[in-house]
Formats: sequence, structure tokens, C-alpha cells
Amino acid sequence: MTIQLGANQYGKAETRLVHVTRGAEAHEIVDLNVSTALSGDLADTHLTGDNAKVLPTDTQKNTVFAFAKEHGVGEIEDFGLKLARHFVGTQEPIHRARVTIEQYGWERIDVDSSPAPHSFQRTGRETRTAMVTVDNSATTDGERAWVVSGLKDLVVLNTTDSEFWGYPKDRYTTLPETHDRVLATAVNAQWRHVDADSDWGKSYDAVRKHLTEAFATTYSLSLQQTLYAMGERVLQHCPEIAEVRLSLPNKHHFVVDMEPFGLRNDNEVFFAADRPYGLIEGTVVQDTAPEPGLAW
Amino acid sequence: MTIQLGANQYGKAETRLVHVTRGAEAHEIVDLNVSTALSGDLADTHLTGDNAKVLPTDTQKNTVFAFAKEHGVGEIEDFGLKLARHFVGTQEPIHRARVTIEQYGWERIDVDSSPAPHSFQRTGRETRTAMVTVDNSATTDGERAWVVSGLKDLVVLNTTDSEFWGYPKDRYTTLPETHDRVLATAVNAQWRHVDADSDWGKSYDAVRKHLTEAFATTYSLSLQQTLYAMGERVLQHCPEIAEVRLSLPNKHHFVVDMEPFGLRNDNEVFFAADRPYGLIEGTVVQDTAPEPGLAW
Amino acid sequence: MTIQLGANQYGKAETRLVHVTRGAEAHEIVDLNVSTALSGDLADTHLTGDNAKVLPTDTQKNTVFAFAKEHGVGEIEDFGLKLARHFVGTQEPIHRARVTIEQYGWERIDVDSSPAPHSFQRTGRETRTAMVTVDNSATTDGERAWVVSGLKDLVVLNTTDSEFWGYPKDRYTTLPETHDRVLATAVNAQWRHVDADSDWGKSYDAVRKHLTEAFATTYSLSLQQTLYAMGERVLQHCPEIAEVRLSLPNKHHFVVDMEPFGLRNDNEVFFAADRPYGLIEGTVVQDTAPEPGLAW
Amino acid sequence: MTIQLGANQYGKAETRLVHVTRGAEAHEIVDLNVSTALSGDLADTHLTGDNAKVLPTDTQKNTVFAFAKEHGVGEIEDFGLKLARHFVGTQEPIHRARVTIEQYGWERIDVDSSPAPHSFQRTGRETRTAMVTVDNSATTDGERAWVVSGLKDLVVLNTTDSEFWGYPKDRYTTLPETHDRVLATAVNAQWRHVDADSDWGKSYDAVRKHLTEAFATTYSLSLQQTLYAMGERVLQHCPEIAEVRLSLPNKHHFVVDMEPFGLRNDNEVFFAADRPYGLIEGTVVQDTAPEPGLAW
Repeated sequence: MTIQLGANQYGKAETRLVHVTRGAEAHEIVDLNVSTALSGDLADTHLTGDNAKVLPTDTQKNTVFAFAKEHGVGEIEDFGLKLARHFVGTQEPIHRARVTIEQYGWERIDVDSSPAPHSFQRTGRETRTAMVTVDNSATTDGERAWVVSGLKDLVVLNTTDSEFWGYPKDRYTTLPETHDRVLATAVNAQWRHVDADSDWGKSYDAVRKHLTEAFATTYSLSLQQTLYAMGERVLQHCPEIAEVRLSLPNKHHFVVDMEPFGLRNDNEVFFAADRPYGLIEGTVVQDTAPEPGLAW
Repeated sequence: MTIQLGANQYGKAETRLVHVTRGAEAHEIVDLNVSTALSGDLADTHLTGDNAKVLPTDTQKNTVFAFAKEHGVGEIEDFGLKLARHFVGTQEPIHRARVTIEQYGWERIDVDSSPAPHSFQRTGRETRTAMVTVDNSATTDGERAWVVSGLKDLVVLNTTDSEFWGYPKDRYTTLPETHDRVLATAVNAQWRHVDADSDWGKSYDAVRKHLTEAFATTYSLSLQQTLYAMGERVLQHCPEIAEVRLSLPNKHHFVVDMEPFGLRNDNEVFFAADRPYGLIEGTVVQDTAPEPGLAW
Repeated sequence: MTIQLGANQYGKAETRLVHVTRGAEAHEIVDLNVSTALSGDLADTHLTGDNAKVLPTDTQKNTVFAFAKEHGVGEIEDFGLKLARHFVGTQEPIHRARVTIEQYGWERIDVDSSPAPHSFQRTGRETRTAMVTVDNSATTDGERAWVVSGLKDLVVLNTTDSEFWGYPKDRYTTLPETHDRVLATAVNAQWRHVDADSDWGKSYDAVRKHLTEAFATTYSLSLQQTLYAMGERVLQHCPEIAEVRLSLPNKHHFVVDMEPFGLRNDNEVFFAADRPYGLIEGTVVQDTAPEPGLAW
Repeated sequence: MTIQLGANQYGKAETRLVHVTRGAEAHEIVDLNVSTALSGDLADTHLTGDNAKVLPTDTQKNTVFAFAKEHGVGEIEDFGLKLARHFVGTQEPIHRARVTIEQYGWERIDVDSSPAPHSFQRTGRETRTAMVTVDNSATTDGERAWVVSGLKDLVVLNTTDSEFWGYPKDRYTTLPETHDRVLATAVNAQWRHVDADSDWGKSYDAVRKHLTEAFATTYSLSLQQTLYAMGERVLQHCPEIAEVRLSLPNKHHFVVDMEPFGLRNDNEVFFAADRPYGLIEGTVVQDTAPEPGLAW
């Protein structure tokens, strides 16, 4: 038996960058959480502690800040690509860089019903995400890039048009069938782009719209059916998307039994439970999409 | 020396209630986190384990659900008053009830630019709160009630119009004075009402508006100054409010030093720090307000 | 109506200090989370933004670090007293300082069954706390000090010797009485010392021991009874303690109903619920204790 | 273009199970967080909402509780295997089951220096984990099983014997080289077993011991070197382990600069930072190990 180093990467996680564009009329802000991870010819530092090929994670952090100054931020997919290409392009031993970004939403505060020029409040809605991978290890292809966009913690709820019945019953099954239930989830979605070049912001808005519209308009016999409808709707309308991955916790809302109180609860009063929760995970793909490669 | 029971209370914390009003045209939802706490003649259970005066916390939880069915929820201040009066009014040994409620915001999902009738998304903005106290222990006054409304986790940020200078310097002071900084905080505010009867929803909207407008429009020499301006603005415009208490973490945004990179950072790129953080806490009161009594 | 500034304080919260004592044979570490809050003659900064009396929170943070270097840390009560006295004693407008400290436990890693000299692992058990208040606003008393020690997140569980019955039943009561249940809580306790001078470490160990022993050995008819027994035991054995305040969430462990599976569950299998939870809060005091003053 | 369902699974996440063994002399407890995930012939529910092949996640939860009663829990790897084999073996459309378990540590409370028979406190140290996968989709192999054990949130710290220097410097590098630093991390480790049959408890204790001993005794020139040493030590001593995966956040402890205070800080006083943090991830494998298959 010999012991070997396997897959590895290192980087700086969760650099909290706020970028202000100080326009003459008004300011803009972008609020990000940026993580970088590099891999390549890194055996030395693992085996002997020789760091000659290890760009410090502190430098990676500095680079995130410096690039925001030098290039601005723009769409997070572009910012991620710029950073990833920089690390792969300037550090000879580094063959692959993955940059993962979370973006927090802000909107202007209204003063006397007009948007203030330099005052903001967090929207608190979903977090927009991007995961960008750049690799130059394939000798023939030169540098390749993959972009996965996403969102997380988009909490949605339908008060009706959801059923669940017709499932197998075994010895341990006690769940009653239902023909009307609350369906709620916190959407965590990631979608892979066909190309590493797109109108990212426009694409994001479209995907978000199709995800929520599909959630709202699908008469649901299972959360799996809703999940598939959400992914399908995105692929139908957004040809720039090759694949959608969804992870949907079933945030159970249990009808409170009011018979002991002599009351009839017609799906009006619910207990919102924390744990356990159903977890439905699935992928929807278009068959002509390019291979995922190193995207995930 | 003898040992005695001092102040005590008990109740059910964090009952997660979702209430759906199933209108013919559209549904409405209310999403609450309700905590109840009762006090009174409770020495027996502490000293001997005799529970004859201890309405179970499980019953308190059931009552929260049942009241949502029987009376609807409405404004959280009213819902809290109803619950608190019930416990004090029906349990002879219970002399005081405090009900604390958090309300999470939801908005309709748009489908084809129209609001969907029974599909919702969490707004994710601030949490609205209410703390209601009802007491009947004073023999002459009968039952008294106090209402404190509030909000928490309203994250706001000004990109300019904030300075901090002119402070004392001692041996341990290294902070440079600044005449232009980012000022950001997560507003946690509670305001005491003059009466236990008000147009709660309208009052909430007004207070929220005045808090954010004061934050946005105050040229700030210290977060303390901003805090006072926020409370003052509320009291100036909302005569139904007796007192405002604010707890404002100073969410530091540090200008990244880019001189080592040969770059000049003109308050454009910031590192958003987690800990430590300044914490500014203060109260603004109107002098003709009634005494707080048991409100807090 | 005029509007006034009421109670206020400001400071630096959650300064994460790790102090290493580098002994010849072995190192020691202390891991703290320190928060400072100052109050006094602070109207100017609130009303006009004049900061001449506002020692920056950044300086307060620096002072925490510097004092660890200059004086060492020792017991957290002593460290808090030193800091609080410094702020009150050196800043003329500051009349009161409160220092709140959390201490995280570490133990040595064993190597070949012997404790390593400079390698540690977090114990992960309860967090030890101290809250120290120093005030010099009373003209006749000079400087006064109060010390409250505590612990939090000490999770304990009895698998038997707990009952709950004999409680009032109203229309909303559905809880069945039980003569054998699991009783679990996360102990959050604070105890006020008679004097601001004590053998803090020895006292902490004794209080912790009596709290857990009382929890373990009290045959419990209610969590209130257990709470009182815990406080009483501390006061009986620790004359340096004037008062104990306990906040005990009832971490419900529900017996899973296995009748539908044809199984009999004799208090063997439990579902550990998150929310809602009972919350039992109470104080146990010795009647000859000095007044609490500004301790809390 | 056609749209297709890709990889998918569903199950019940975070079933919080506490199991009590009520021995004549003393009780034992096991405290778990169990998640199940099933995959197989599940296209119908996604495409049409036909749930005939969808064993409810509620039933999966019930099965977790029932199996604890019927079979006891024992080692979490065995409990996971029993559950996974049950789902694959009894649900014809289900070809693969993954069971992920977290185990929280408890120890007895001492009363008069003797362990109490039915009173416990949470240890709060690392969480032990297991991830078990059972698959019968390969027609020739019958049912196959993989076991990955692990731990997370084991927080460790060396106060010395750590250096970091000799790294590349680019335009954005500002980090000074150091020949003596604090090295701290929260160990998240998973290790794949050669067989789905082992003395799990004994193996866990050995792996934990070797991880911590390697952390403590490795003179470290980089966290990567420490990571490799930890994995290597496990594989050298535990032939039952095929592969170790480690994810080590570099919990930065920055030396506080005390020159402005006229003090010299000889690696005694540190600021423990939250974010950003380095994140070092790597795998150590033995070359004769079987292929990982579906283990991860």
C-alpha cells in the first residue's frame, strides 16, 4: 500500500465586498460574498510544506478587492470569470480556479416617495449566486470556462392547488392522503449556461420569473411535479440555459387539529414545522446541451 | 438566611402560526411566531411541584392556534391583546400575561405581471414585532394593558453624508478621523404606544417610514446622532407613540487600503466586517407620555 | 410636548480575543468574546453630533486587547472589572461601564495519552459568562461595582424521574398527563455575587456542580420545581452568591406513537422537537442579600 | 431540443431521534439527526404527479423511529445500513438509498463524583457522522453498499510550531511571511471504508485519535501539509480506511499590532477573525483501495 494525495483545492472563502459607484446624481452599491478556490500542481505544499506554488489566500482576497476597483463589479458572472481567468492565467502552477459569489439585494430608501440618492435598504429576498470555473489543464483546448448561475432562499408558498395521494403504503405509513394542502419551499436553484458569455442580468431576471411563475401556476400532485415544471419552464423559455438543478425542502405546514376544541379547521390554521422536512432534489436538462464538463 | 422564590414567568415560546384567509377571489396569509409568558401565584409549582395553577404551555400553544381560527389574526397588537386578556381573565392565579409576536412579510407572486390569487413569496425585509402586556394585579385599577410595537433586522446603509471625528484620544486610540464614511446598521426598534388602542397597521407604516427617512436624510456626525434623529422624527409625527427604543449595531464597512497595489480607493471598495461591531443603544421619549409601567 | 433623550449606552460588542500564555513547558490559552458598553454624559453626541465625550468603540476594542497584554486575562470577572474601572476612571463623562464576557472552553489534545504542550481542542460544553458593572454616578458612594457570573447552553437531560400532571384543563387543553417523561433543557443561568471580590474560578466550578447535581437528583413534578431546586442548591452551598436567575427552555422530547406500526414504545424512542418550546424563567434569592443595584 | 429529467432523489431530512435504553442499573441515550434520500424509477411523479412509486417522506421518518425501536440503534453506520437496505429491499422502484446521520455526544452528569444513572449532559465536542449508500441497480452485482464515516466541527488550535513563508508574491500580495503563528481549524473529515462491515466504534475512536495527534504533532509549514499529515496518519494506522477527505477552514488568529500603544506583542494576544477564512480541502488515498463507486 502506498498513500497518495488525491483531489485538492484551496482558497479564500467569504470575502465580504461592498462596492460603491459614486455617480454625480446618485450612488449605486453592490454587496457580495466572494469565495475563490484554486487547484493545480499543489503536491509540494502538501508533502513537504514548500509553498513556492501557493499564492496566499490573503492575496486572493486582496485581488477580489483590487479587481472591484480596477474593473468594477458588474454582473457577478463576469466578475467571477475575470477573477478565475486571472488566477489561472497568472499563476503557472494553477490549472483551475473556481469563484463562487453570493449577491445580496439592496433597493433605495424612499424619501417623500422619491428614491434617495445614496441611502439603501436590504431587500432580504433571495440571494443571487454564481459559480464560475476556468480550467486550462487540457493541453489541446486552451482555457475553458463554465458558468452556473443560481439563487437560494427564495421562500414561496401556495395556499391551495396542491394534493398528495396515491402513494404506496407500507407498515410504517400513517400519512393521510390529502387533496388540498399548503405547499411551501425555499427554492435553491442553480442553472448551467450553454456558453460562458451571456446577458447575465437579463437571464437571471427571466429565470427567476419562470421559476416563480411555474411554482404559482402548477397544479401540484407532488413537489417533484412542481420541481420538474419549474425546471422545464426555464429551459423552454431560456435557450441560453443547458440544465437546471433544484433542491426544494418541503416546508411542512400541518393543519392544526381543532376537533378537541370543538372547532372546524378548514385549512385555515397551520403549524409551520422546522424539522424534519422533506427534501426533493432533481435536475432538468435539455438533451442538446453541451456536456457539463467541470461546471459543477 | 432564608431562600426565596423571586420574579418568575413561564410560557410557550415560538409557536409558528400560519393563518390563511380563503377569500372567494384570493387568499391572504399571515405568518407569525408567537410567544406567551404568564406570571402570578406560581409559588406552589416551584416549591412542591403542585401544578394546580399551571396552565400547561401546551395549552397556551393550542390557544394561539384556536384564537386564530375563532377570531382571525388581524393586526398582531390586537391578536396579542386578545391572547393576553384571555389568559389573565380565565386563569385566576395568573395576574400578568405577556405575548410577544414576530410577523414575517409575504407578498404575492406575479404571474404575467398580475398578482397571483394564492401564491406568495417571503419579502425577507424587516420582521415586524409586538410585545403586549396585560396585568390585573393592581387591586384598584382593574386590568391594565401596554403595547410595544417594533421591527428588527431592517438593514440600511448610507454611502455618504456620515462623518466621525472630534472624539477623545487616549493611549489606545488608533482610529483615524473621517469626514466621509459608509454608515450601515440593522435597525432594531421598539416603540411604546400611549394607549392600548390604536390603528396599529397605519401606525406601523408611519413609524417605519419615519425611521428610514430619518436615517436617509440625517447628515450624520455619529450613529448616536442618527439614532436620536430617528426616534425624534417618529415622536414628532406619531402622537400615538410615547417612547422609542433603538438598538443599532454599527455594521462597519472598512475602506480597503489599496496603496500597496498602487491603486487609489476613493471610498469605493469596502470590506464588510462581522465582528466586533459598535453597538449604539438609546431611548427617545416625549415628556408628556404616560409612565411605562409594565410595558417593557 | 417636548422630546428628550432617555437611557442610552454605547460600546464595542463581540471583540474576539484569544490570549496565549507562552510558558517554558507549556502554553495556556484563553478564548473570549468581550463586549463593552459605556454610559454617562452623552447628550451632546445624540443632539448635535459633538463627539468630544465619546471614546470611540474602536478604542474600547483596542483597550480589550491591550489589557490582555498588560495585565493578562485571569478570571473573566477580574478582567471585566479591570476594563470597566478603566473606562469609568479615565473618561470623565463616563459614569457607568458594563463589560460582558463569554468564555469558550478548551482542553489539551492528548498525544500518546499525554497532554500536548501547545495543542488544544474546544470542549464545546457550556459557555461561561460574566457581566460586570461599575458606576461612579452616586456622589456619596464613590465607585461601586457589581458582578454577575453565569453560564449558557449547558444542555442536560434526564431520561426518567420527571412527571407532569395535576394541571388545570380548559377548553384548549389536550396534553395528556404523564408520570414518566424525558426532561431536557439548555441551562442559561446567571448568578449575582454578594461582593465584587471572590475566588471566581472556584465559585464557578461550585455553582456549575450544584446546578447539574440538582438537575440530576431532583425528582421533578415540573420544570419549575427543578429550576427552584437548582437555584436553591446553589444558594445553600455558595454563600458568596446572592441571587440566581435561570432561563430554562423545555426541550420537548415527544414519545413517538408506535401503535400504528403494531409496536409498543415504552419511553424508548423520542422525537426531539425544535419549536415551540416551553420556557421557564425564575429567580431564587437569599433574603439577606444586598440589593441588586445596577447589577442587572 | 427536448427536455428531460436528470439525476434526482427525495427523502426526509433531519429526523431528530433520541433513543433511550432503559437498563436495570442505568439508562443509555443515543441522539441522532437522520436524513434519508431515495432514488430510482421516479420519472412518473416528476412528469405526471403519479405517486405510485413514491414512498412518502413521512413514512421514511416513521421508519427511522420504528427501526430504533425494533432493532435498537447501535453504531450509526449499522443503523444507516439497516435503513438503506430496507428501503431498497422493500420498495421495488427504489434502486438506491442514502442515509446520512449525525450523532451528538452525551456524557453522564457526575453526582458526588459518581456518574448518575439517568442524567446526561451534551459534550458539545465534534459531531460524529455517517453516510451510507446502498444500490441494487447493477444487474450483476446484486446489492452493493458503501460506508463513509466522519466528524465535523472538531475545533483545534496550535499556539506554535506553525510557519507560512516562501509563497509567490504578486502585485496584490501584502501578507508578511511568518515563522511562528497560531494555526486553528474546525476539522470536517470524512473517510471511506474499504468494506461495509467494520468495528465502527473502534474505528471511529482510532481515526479521531490519529487526526488530532497528527494535528498536534505536525510541525506545519502550511495548513495543506497538516491536512496531508492528518489523512496520511489515518491511512497508516487504519487499514480499514480507503480514503480520507478533509475540509479545513483556516480560522485566522491575527496578532494584534500593539506598537501604537507602546507595547510589544510576542504572539500573545490575537484577534480571532470570522470572515474571510482560508479553506483548504484535500483527499488522501491509499492506492490499493477499491474504487469509490457510489460512496460519495
